[in-house]
Amino acid sequence: MVKKEKVMALEAGPDADLDPEMRAYFAKCLEKLGFVPNVFKAYAFDNAKLRAFVAMADDLMLGDSGLSKLEREMIAVAVSSVNHCHYCLTAHGAAVRQRAKDPELGELIAQNYRAADLPPRQASMLAFAVKLTEAPDKIEEEDRERLRRAGFSDRDIWDIAAVAAFYNMSNRMAAAVDMRPNREYHYMVRERTGDEARTPTPDRRTSPPSAPLSRGSAARRRRSRIE
Amino acid sequence: MVKKEKVMALEAGPDADLDPEMRAYFAKCLEKLGFVPNVFKAYAFDNAKLRAFVAMADDLMLGDSGLSKLEREMIAVAVSSVNHCHYCLTAHGAAVRQRAKDPELGELIAQNYRAADLPPRQASMLAFAVKLTEAPDKIEEEDRERLRRAGFSDRDIWDIAAVAAFYNMSNRMAAAVDMRPNREYHYMVRERTGDEARTPTPDRRTSPPSAPLSRGSAARRRRSRIE
Amino acid sequence: MVKKEKVMALEAGPDADLDPEMRAYFAKCLEKLGFVPNVFKAYAFDNAKLRAFVAMADDLMLGDSGLSKLEREMIAVAVSSVNHCHYCLTAHGAAVRQRAKDPELGELIAQNYRAADLPPRQASMLAFAVKLTEAPDKIEEEDRERLRRAGFSDRDIWDIAAVAAFYNMSNRMAAAVDMRPNREYHYMVRERTGDEARTPTPDRRTSPPSAPLSRGSAARRRRSRIE
Amino acid sequence: MVKKEKVMALEAGPDADLDPEMRAYFAKCLEKLGFVPNVFKAYAFDNAKLRAFVAMADDLMLGDSGLSKLEREMIAVAVSSVNHCHYCLTAHGAAVRQRAKDPELGELIAQNYRAADLPPRQASMLAFAVKLTEAPDKIEEEDRERLRRAGFSDRDIWDIAAVAAFYNMSNRMAAAVDMRPNREYHYMVRERTGDEARTPTPDRRTSPPSAPLSRGSAARRRRSRIE
Amino acid sequence: MVKKEKVMALEAGPDADLDPEMRAYFAKCLEKLGFVPNVFKAYAFDNAKLRAFVAMADDLMLGDSGLSKLEREMIAVAVSSVNHCHYCLTAHGAAVRQRAKDPELGELIAQNYRAADLPPRQASMLAFAVKLTEAPDKIEEEDRERLRRAGFSDRDIWDIAAVAAFYNMSNRMAAAVDMRPNREYHYMVRERTGDEARTPTPDRRTSPPSAPLSRGSAARRRRSRIE
Amino acid sequence: MVKKEKVMALEAGPDADLDPEMRAYFAKCLEKLGFVPNVFKAYAFDNAKLRAFVAMADDLMLGDSGLSKLEREMIAVAVSSVNHCHYCLTAHGAAVRQRAKDPELGELIAQNYRAADLPPRQASMLAFAVKLTEAPDKIEEEDRERLRRAGFSDRDIWDIAAVAAFYNMSNRMAAAVDMRPNREYHYMVRERTGDEARTPTPDRRTSPPSAPLSRGSAARRRRSRIE
Repeated sequence: MVKKEKVMALEAGPDADLDPEMRAYFAKCLEKLGFVPNVFKAYAFDNAKLRAFVAMADDLMLGDSGLSKLEREMIAVAVSSVNHCHYCLTAHGAAVRQRAKDPELGELIAQNYRAADLPPRQASMLAFAVKLTEAPDKIEEEDRERLRRAGFSDRDIWDIAAVAAFYNMSNRMAAAVDMRPNREYHYMVRERTGDEARTPTPDRRTSPPSAPLSRGSAARRRRSRIE
Repeated sequence: MVKKEKVMALEAGPDADLDPEMRAYFAKCLEKLGFVPNVFKAYAFDNAKLRAFVAMADDLMLGDSGLSKLEREMIAVAVSSVNHCHYCLTAHGAAVRQRAKDPELGELIAQNYRAADLPPRQASMLAFAVKLTEAPDKIEEEDRERLRRAGFSDRDIWDIAAVAAFYNMSNRMAAAVDMRPNREYHYMVRERTGDEARTPTPDRRTSPPSAPLSRGSAARRRRSRIE
Repeated sequence: MVKKEKVMALEAGPDADLDPEMRAYFAKCLEKLGFVPNVFKAYAFDNAKLRAFVAMADDLMLGDSGLSKLEREMIAVAVSSVNHCHYCLTAHGAAVRQRAKDPELGELIAQNYRAADLPPRQASMLAFAVKLTEAPDKIEEEDRERLRRAGFSDRDIWDIAAVAAFYNMSNRMAAAVDMRPNREYHYMVRERTGDEARTPTPDRRTSPPSAPLSRGSAARRRRSRIE
Repeated sequence: MVKKEKVMALEAGPDADLDPEMRAYFAKCLEKLGFVPNVFKAYAFDNAKLRAFVAMADDLMLGDSGLSKLEREMIAVAVSSVNHCHYCLTAHGAAVRQRAKDPELGELIAQNYRAADLPPRQASMLAFAVKLTEAPDKIEEEDRERLRRAGFSDRDIWDIAAVAAFYNMSNRMAAAVDMRPNREYHYMVRERTGDEARTPTPDRRTSPPSAPLSRGSAARRRRSRIE
Repeated sequence: MVKKEKVMALEAGPDADLDPEMRAYFAKCLEKLGFVPNVFKAYAFDNAKLRAFVAMADDLMLGDSGLSKLEREMIAVAVSSVNHCHYCLTAHGAAVRQRAKDPELGELIAQNYRAADLPPRQASMLAFAVKLTEAPDKIEEEDRERLRRAGFSDRDIWDIAAVAAFYNMSNRMAAAVDMRPNREYHYMVRERTGDEARTPTPDRRTSPPSAPLSRGSAARRRRSRIE
Repeated sequence: MVKKEKVMALEAGPDADLDPEMRAYFAKCLEKLGFVPNVFKAYAFDNAKLRAFVAMADDLMLGDSGLSKLEREMIAVAVSSVNHCHYCLTAHGAAVRQRAKDPELGELIAQNYRAADLPPRQASMLAFAVKLTEAPDKIEEEDRERLRRAGFSDRDIWDIAAVAAFYNMSNRMAAAVDMRPNREYHYMVRERTGDEARTPTPDRRTSPPSAPLSRGSAARRRRSRIE
């Protein structure tokens, strides 16, 4: 693999001889995204480390879950905002924009999810993820209860926790080695979406019905896309 | 003025009868930007408050200074990143993208300026601005000395401090009233800039010469634009 | 203007040729206070900066508002206490002592407003100002609602926010340039006020009626002065 | 003992039958200060607790030490500033004013010792006390070495630590029970001291000679009093 | 006294000529514990300081109180956990293990009391102690009210505060001088206690009855020992 | 699998039908440790999640690395100390005791690594891990340089970062679901080791030679075991 730009500050060694599964994984990235995310290139000096990272990331973000894929990306971005992680905010900010088909939502969560006027389900989900990030030692049963009251099952709570915990790892890995995101992420899903003729793009999961919002049309549109 | 979307969470009252100077200012915003920034609409319930805010902001960001306009916008964004200010990150992130003609630099500073591989001059400038934001009570003469060693005059230090302090005010004002940025900002200067045929776009001020960078071409391009 | 003592650590340049309005402002300070506050002298190297600062400070602290002038000074001091700002605690601590005609109240707020046994209106006002100072990114609608429940209008909330935000700017400016308060402030309104024969000194605004206090006579006296 | 004002928020019980030594101690307070400090009244519900507190406080603040009594009061106030302790800032702020014969120094340390332009000896002493207050778990040998380089013996370092640690206890005790200082403290040593005809008032200990200061005459006067 | 291992990083001086009472105290330590705790050896360079420290520690931890001796040790350990104090976690962790006859409880509190599934009385007691440690300036009447609702008298609240405050002093003293615990503490009460044939070992005080717990048998056993 | 005690606060579902590899893994745990660590039981509701977690943990803690296995456990414990993680401090504290054959070292790191008088190599390693835990956004090239100066290769730095990052994930997972460690951990390697007749137990890697220590014999013994 020719690396045109350094993907991190460490010289951890040349790329390993990747096994067929990992080679296929890289090929699929190229095909679907047009590039291999730099985080995978950074891990590629060691096949076992790459496999373990890919397996965990893919299970968490793409596997079966009571959380929609968009919701999981929102957690990734909210956690990365607290940790000011350049790599993850860039890559997963793009993922939120893409999954929500909403160029503004990615930035809202990256900046401060409290400004995003989210439905109660997502607001409580992100409040838990942020508390777990900032003060894990202060989590108590009441925090889990709050998620249950917002409609999450115990299995959902595991998933919220697992995604938030995973990005607390990834953020620190990226910071420790100065990981640099592929430049392509900056330019994905930046075009303004039409405001009227939008076909609703329901995610797999819907959140419980919630009261109508008082904000303007942008927030209402955003909301209808998340819910 | 017809407000199609609410600009903040407070009902501070109807727009005041703006004086001719403020009306001209709004007209100029419309002409140059295509919209009146919502922060000005938020202050418009009171002509005196609007005038005072506009006067201070314009003097700081556009007035005579040893800091380039891009550098002042970089300070605004770095401070707003610490404070997680949705409004200012959106509006001034766009301004950094625009002044640097670099869609990536705005996000870098908004996420974590330490990842931006900045020349020493700008890195020390932002380090001071961030310390002043996080722990103003811990600023000591040594902090000013560090700026002097990085080539800043005492008057420059005043300006760094004044811009950083101003956005500590604005961030809090925006948070307190839940100020909402114009949606247009999200879409400004998002197109990828060509990597080769770029005419250097020198800002008014140049930073002192610095050692060549080891990062890839993107950082080098960025650097040449800032310097 | 002969400066007998340095007013800050920076040599920002000689005093500008002040315009007639600013010269008149300085003259009025001398007449009313006996001295020109050093913060104005610090800004005097640039007429435009001085004008902008004076305009904003005067509008906030002396302009029309649902908050009494004493309440605005209390916010200035509570914010400056969090930020440990020597200049503002000295100057605005004196202002609280003077406006409250209570030498103890200025110190109470400067030390820790929670020890001041304030009426609910002022306690909630300062709690908001302190949260806005310490964690602006965590302000949510519930914080504004709490102020509304304490009797504040939306316009009042703007003013609480604007004063708290302004001193977050001023505190940082003072810290950044090591601004030094006029020595006179230390000695203003220090004499113990008589405990019985006090004529109540109602401020323009009164707070809503509140339950009788259990503390001793000093707190009761203080309370009657604030309310 | 007739309590005209409550000295704290707890009803810990009636005053104990104080032993002759404690009664004599209270009498001496009355004679020397004109009042019994409320902290002693608060402990007076239990003779053993009062004795233990008095013994420790008196040994630390008045006993034999390489630190002057003024320096020990400065530590008490700098620690209490970090902890925003109303009681201790009031009582020991008065003590600094009194021992330094300088009404301004007490406030400077109570607000932010970094603004006080202190000689290196006292600045390093307070830097250690503040770090010990804010982050005791981060103290390392280098912190002790810095004190040794500033001229302190190991025994002096013990005393700096012991005074700083003691006020971390007292501040918390005062906060926990809402201890209220005697009103008299507010009014002690507030008159402006003459600026020229001052007879130097050397404390028992002198600090090592230090370079001349660049600040104005007030700081020079202050400095000559501390050293 | 022959010191085989240094008890701290400072050379504060040789042991003082201890008075008969302190010599008897050391002898009693040797008889009961098999060693003199290093904290006492550290203070032994000065008889008055040693006496004052012993008097206060013994009154707080062994004197008459509405808190059981185990509860007081739990407070010591919870506070020391926040401050990451090696000496106190070692010495008082052993004391919790010993008084509770539960090798696991000492570690639970040393690590994070929130994981210990404590009865409401002890949980609220430690929550207060931890808040008083982390943010003494934020204690308000509501914090005391919460303790009253959990069944504590005002005198009990004094004792909770006094023990928590004392260890905020001791933790800092230990950190400042790098105090090193006697190695024996590490090995005290480490053997697993039988799970069935335990005779309940009621402490002097019992906590109010509380709802049955849902956790497994270990927590139930622990609970019955604390209550 | 019969669960006699709940391993966490969530009911994430019954154990999955584990694949042969995971069944073999559990059997090996039972054989080597006498129990299956509860963290694995907690993940056992989902075979894919369990596999991914086991793969990553085993690669990091047992795979090829320039860090010794003891050093990796020390990082796990130092990170868990910052995060106050009951599960990881218990399980990995036992692992440090076991790998170091030193019952005291595990507690030292769990309480505060700065008190452990470690050789420079391990001290700088843990300082990096702790900074990465507390302030990942503040990591800069200078932090990596410090590790290089302490003798670590870039590949070693990756491993330090990866272990520290992984426990920032695990700590949060354990906190989020209230994971409870197997009771057996508390009792492992608690017996005091002989002080003289110890055969040095060199770990695979040795740290660079370092200056002789001034502390007593316990620290010297500990040091010789780590190095």
